Amino acid sequence: MDYQSINFENKLSLFSEQWTPKVIAEMNDYQFKVVKIEGDFIWHSHANTDETFIVLEGELRIDFRDGSVSLSAGEMYVVPKGVEHKPYAEKEVKMLLIEPRGVLNTGDEETSEITAVNDVWI
Amino acid sequence: MDYQSINFENKLSLFSEQWTPKVIAEMNDYQFKVVKIEGDFIWHSHANTDETFIVLEGELRIDFRDGSVSLSAGEMYVVPKGVEHKPYAEKEVKMLLIEPRGVLNTGDEETSEITAVNDVWI
Repeated sequence: MDYQSINFENKLSLFSEQWTPKVIAEMNDYQFKVVKIEGDFIWHSHANTDETFIVLEGELRIDFRDGSVSLSAGEMYVVPKGVEHKPYAEKEVKMLLIEPRGVLNTGDEETSEITAVNDVWI
Repeated sequence: MDYQSINFENKLSLFSEQWTPKVIAEMNDYQFKVVKIEGDFIWHSHANTDETFIVLEGELRIDFRDGSVSLSAGEMYVVPKGVEHKPYAEKEVKMLLIEPRGVLNTGDEETSEITAVNDVWI
Protein backbone atom coordinates (compact mmCIF):
# COMPACT_ATOMS: atom_id res chain seq x y z
CA MET A 1 0.00 0.00 0.00
CA ASP A 2 1.23 3.49 -0.85
CA TYR A 3 0.85 5.97 1.96
CA GLN A 4 0.74 9.67 1.10
CA SER A 5 3.27 12.21 2.26
CA ILE A 6 2.12 15.75 3.04
CA ASN A 7 3.52 18.34 0.64
CA PHE A 8 3.69 21.87 2.05
CA GLU A 9 3.62 23.62 -1.34
CA ASN A 10 0.67 21.56 -2.46
CA LYS A 11 -1.29 22.32 0.70
CA LEU A 12 -0.50 26.04 0.39
CA SER A 13 -1.75 26.06 -3.21
CA LEU A 14 -5.23 25.05 -2.05
CA PHE A 15 -6.13 28.41 -0.50
CA SER A 16 -5.27 32.07 -0.86
CA GLU A 17 -6.69 33.77 2.23
CA GLN A 18 -4.31 35.12 4.84
CA TRP A 19 -4.23 34.73 8.63
CA THR A 20 -6.25 31.50 8.54
CA PRO A 21 -4.14 28.54 9.68
CA LYS A 22 -5.14 25.20 8.14
CA VAL A 23 -4.31 21.93 9.83
CA ILE A 24 -2.35 19.49 7.67
CA ALA A 25 -1.26 16.90 10.22
CA GLU A 26 -1.39 15.89 13.86
CA MET A 27 1.32 14.36 16.06
CA ASN A 28 -0.08 13.20 19.39
CA ASP A 29 -2.00 16.28 20.65
CA TYR A 30 -0.04 18.72 18.49
CA GLN A 31 -1.09 20.16 15.15
CA PHE A 32 0.90 21.22 12.08
CA LYS A 33 -0.77 24.15 10.32
CA VAL A 34 0.13 26.02 7.15
CA VAL A 35 -0.72 29.71 7.00
CA LYS A 36 -0.14 32.76 4.78
CA ILE A 37 0.30 36.10 6.47
CA GLU A 38 1.04 39.63 5.34
CA GLY A 39 1.22 42.80 7.38
CA ASP A 40 0.96 43.16 11.12
CA PHE A 41 -0.76 40.89 13.63
CA ILE A 42 -1.72 41.85 17.18
CA TRP A 43 0.40 41.53 20.29
CA HIS A 44 -0.48 38.33 22.10
CA SER A 45 0.96 35.49 24.12
CA HIS A 46 0.13 31.90 24.95
CA ALA A 47 0.25 31.32 28.70
CA ASN A 48 0.47 27.54 28.55
CA THR A 49 2.52 26.61 25.53
CA ASP A 50 5.48 27.40 23.34
CA GLU A 51 4.74 28.02 19.66
CA THR A 52 6.91 26.98 16.71
CA PHE A 53 7.26 28.97 13.47
CA ILE A 54 8.93 27.44 10.40
CA VAL A 55 9.16 29.71 7.36
CA LEU A 56 8.55 27.98 4.02
CA GLU A 57 8.61 31.02 1.71
CA GLY A 58 9.22 34.72 2.28
CA GLU A 59 10.52 36.68 5.23
CA LEU A 60 8.93 36.76 8.67
CA ARG A 61 9.73 39.06 11.55
CA ILE A 62 8.49 38.29 15.03
CA ASP A 63 8.52 41.32 17.27
CA PHE A 64 9.00 41.00 21.01
CA ARG A 65 8.69 43.76 23.58
CA ASP A 66 12.50 43.90 23.79
CA GLY A 67 13.56 43.04 20.25
CA SER A 68 12.78 40.84 17.28
CA VAL A 69 13.81 37.78 15.30
CA SER A 70 13.91 37.54 11.50
CA LEU A 71 13.25 34.27 9.71
CA SER A 72 13.79 33.31 6.07
CA ALA A 73 12.75 30.12 4.30
CA GLY A 74 14.41 27.13 5.95
CA GLU A 75 14.50 28.77 9.35
CA MET A 76 12.54 28.21 12.55
CA TYR A 77 11.96 29.84 15.90
CA VAL A 78 10.20 28.71 19.05
CA VAL A 79 8.40 31.49 20.91
CA PRO A 80 8.46 30.53 24.61
CA LYS A 81 5.19 30.31 26.50
CA GLY A 82 4.07 33.54 28.07
CA VAL A 83 6.23 35.75 25.85
CA GLU A 84 4.35 38.54 24.10
CA HIS A 85 4.95 38.54 20.37
CA LYS A 86 3.65 40.05 17.16
CA PRO A 87 4.30 38.39 13.80
CA TYR A 88 4.92 40.76 10.89
CA ALA A 89 5.51 40.22 7.18
CA GLU A 90 6.16 43.08 4.77
CA LYS A 91 5.25 40.79 1.87
CA GLU A 92 3.25 37.59 2.08
CA VAL A 93 5.03 34.83 3.94
CA LYS A 94 4.08 31.16 3.89
CA MET A 95 4.82 29.23 7.02
CA LEU A 96 4.24 26.19 9.15
CA LEU A 97 3.02 26.52 12.74
CA ILE A 98 3.33 23.77 15.30
CA GLU A 99 1.42 23.99 18.55
CA PRO A 100 -0.95 21.95 20.70
CA ARG A 101 -4.46 21.32 19.39
CA GLY A 102 -6.83 24.03 20.59
CA VAL A 103 -4.43 26.97 20.68
CA LEU A 104 -5.99 30.14 19.26
CA ASN A 105 -3.98 32.34 16.90
CA THR A 106 -4.72 35.37 19.06
CA GLY A 107 -3.51 33.61 22.19
CA ASP A 108 -4.82 34.90 25.49
CA GLU A 109 -6.26 38.08 24.01
CA GLU A 110 -10.01 38.25 23.90
CA THR A 111 -11.24 36.66 20.73
CA SER A 112 -12.00 39.13 17.97
CA GLU A 113 -12.69 39.22 14.25
CA ILE A 114 -9.08 38.22 13.60
CA THR A 115 -9.34 35.11 15.74
CA ALA A 116 -9.21 32.27 13.26
CA VAL A 117 -11.52 29.29 13.52
CA ASN A 118 -9.63 26.30 14.86
CA ASP A 119 -9.36 22.78 13.48
CA VAL A 120 -9.88 23.68 9.84
CA TRP A 121 -8.16 20.92 7.87
CA ILE A 122 -6.95 21.17 4.33
CA MET B 1 17.77 42.91 20.99
CA ASP B 2 18.19 40.62 18.02
CA TYR B 3 17.09 37.07 18.66
CA GLN B 4 18.53 34.31 16.48
CA SER B 5 16.49 32.13 14.16
CA ILE B 6 17.52 28.51 13.69
CA ASN B 7 18.70 27.75 10.16
CA PHE B 8 18.39 24.08 9.11
CA GLU B 9 21.09 24.21 6.43
CA ASN B 10 23.49 25.91 8.80
CA LYS B 11 22.89 23.33 11.53
CA LEU B 12 23.32 20.48 9.03
CA SER B 13 26.64 21.94 7.85
CA LEU B 14 28.11 21.50 11.33
CA PHE B 15 28.40 17.71 11.19
CA SER B 16 28.80 14.95 8.65
CA GLU B 17 28.08 11.72 10.50
CA GLN B 18 24.91 9.81 9.69
CA TRP B 19 22.20 8.34 11.95
CA THR B 20 23.03 10.71 14.81
CA PRO B 21 20.14 13.11 15.45
CA LYS B 22 21.19 16.48 16.89
CA VAL B 23 18.76 18.62 18.85
CA ILE B 24 18.34 22.15 17.47
CA ALA B 25 15.28 23.36 19.41
CA GLU B 26 12.70 22.44 22.02
CA MET B 27 8.99 23.25 22.14
CA ASN B 28 7.48 22.33 25.51
CA ASP B 29 8.61 18.71 26.01
CA TYR B 30 9.20 18.08 22.31
CA GLN B 31 12.51 18.24 20.47
CA PHE B 32 13.42 19.23 16.91
CA LYS B 33 16.40 17.23 15.64
CA VAL B 34 18.31 17.35 12.37
CA VAL B 35 19.78 14.12 11.08
CA LYS B 36 21.50 12.71 7.99
CA ILE B 37 20.75 9.15 7.02
CA GLU B 38 21.73 6.84 4.18
CA GLY B 39 20.88 3.20 3.67
CA ASP B 40 18.61 1.05 5.75
CA PHE B 41 17.65 1.42 9.40
CA ILE B 42 16.13 -1.33 11.57
CA TRP B 43 12.45 -2.11 12.03
CA HIS B 44 11.18 -0.46 15.18
CA SER B 45 8.21 1.31 16.68
CA HIS B 46 7.48 3.79 19.45
CA ALA B 47 4.71 2.49 21.74
CA ASN B 48 3.89 5.84 23.32
CA THR B 49 4.30 8.50 20.69
CA ASP B 50 3.84 9.52 17.09
CA GLU B 51 7.00 10.59 15.25
CA THR B 52 7.24 13.35 12.65
CA PHE B 53 9.63 13.30 9.65
CA ILE B 54 10.19 16.43 7.54
CA VAL B 55 12.56 16.01 4.60
CA LEU B 56 14.89 18.96 3.99
CA GLU B 57 17.04 17.50 1.20
CA GLY B 58 17.01 14.20 -0.68
CA GLU B 59 14.51 11.39 -0.86
CA LEU B 60 13.32 9.33 2.09
CA ARG B 61 11.28 6.16 2.04
CA ILE B 62 9.64 4.90 5.20
CA ASP B 63 8.73 1.23 4.95
CA PHE B 64 5.79 -0.20 6.86
CA ARG B 65 4.85 -3.85 7.16
CA ASP B 66 2.05 -3.27 4.63
CA GLY B 67 3.52 -0.61 2.36
CA SER B 68 5.60 2.53 2.31
CA VAL B 69 5.59 6.30 1.98
CA SER B 70 8.05 8.36 -0.09
CA LEU B 71 9.04 11.87 0.92
CA SER B 72 10.92 14.54 -1.00
CA ALA B 73 12.19 17.90 0.26
CA GLY B 74 9.27 19.98 1.50
CA GLU B 75 7.24 16.97 2.55
CA MET B 76 6.35 15.50 5.92
CA TYR B 77 4.83 12.38 7.37
CA VAL B 78 3.71 11.46 10.88
CA VAL B 79 4.30 7.81 11.80
CA PRO B 80 1.55 6.87 14.28
CA LYS B 81 2.52 5.46 17.64
CA GLY B 82 2.91 1.70 17.72
CA VAL B 83 3.36 1.36 13.96
CA GLU B 84 6.45 -0.58 12.90
CA HIS B 85 8.56 1.35 10.43
CA LYS B 86 11.98 1.35 8.80
CA PRO B 87 13.45 4.51 7.28
CA TYR B 88 15.48 4.02 4.10
CA ALA B 89 17.45 6.39 1.89
CA GLU B 90 19.22 5.26 -1.28
CA LYS B 91 21.35 8.42 -1.15
CA GLU B 92 21.94 10.62 1.86
CA VAL B 93 18.85 12.45 3.01
CA LYS B 94 18.80 15.38 5.41
CA MET B 95 15.76 15.68 7.59
CA LEU B 96 14.08 17.12 10.63
CA LEU B 97 12.60 14.85 13.28
CA ILE B 98 10.06 16.03 15.83
CA GLU B 99 9.24 13.88 18.82
CA PRO B 100 9.03 14.07 22.61
CA ARG B 101 12.26 14.49 24.54
CA GLY B 102 13.69 11.12 25.53
CA VAL B 103 12.55 9.08 22.53
CA LEU B 104 15.27 6.73 21.27
CA ASN B 105 15.91 6.43 17.54
CA THR B 106 15.62 2.66 17.77
CA GLY B 107 12.28 2.89 19.54
CA ASP B 108 11.24 -0.06 21.64
CA GLU B 109 13.93 -2.35 20.24
CA GLU B 110 16.69 -3.24 22.64
CA THR B 111 19.36 -0.62 22.45
CA SER B 112 22.30 -1.54 20.26
CA GLU B 113 25.32 0.03 18.61
CA ILE B 114 22.98 1.94 16.29
CA THR B 115 21.07 3.50 19.15
CA ALA B 116 22.06 7.16 19.07
CA VAL B 117 22.89 9.07 22.21
CA ASN B 118 20.03 11.36 23.14
CA ASP B 119 20.04 15.09 23.89
CA VAL B 120 23.04 15.96 21.78
CA TRP B 121 22.59 19.62 20.86
CA ILE B 122 24.20 21.35 17.92
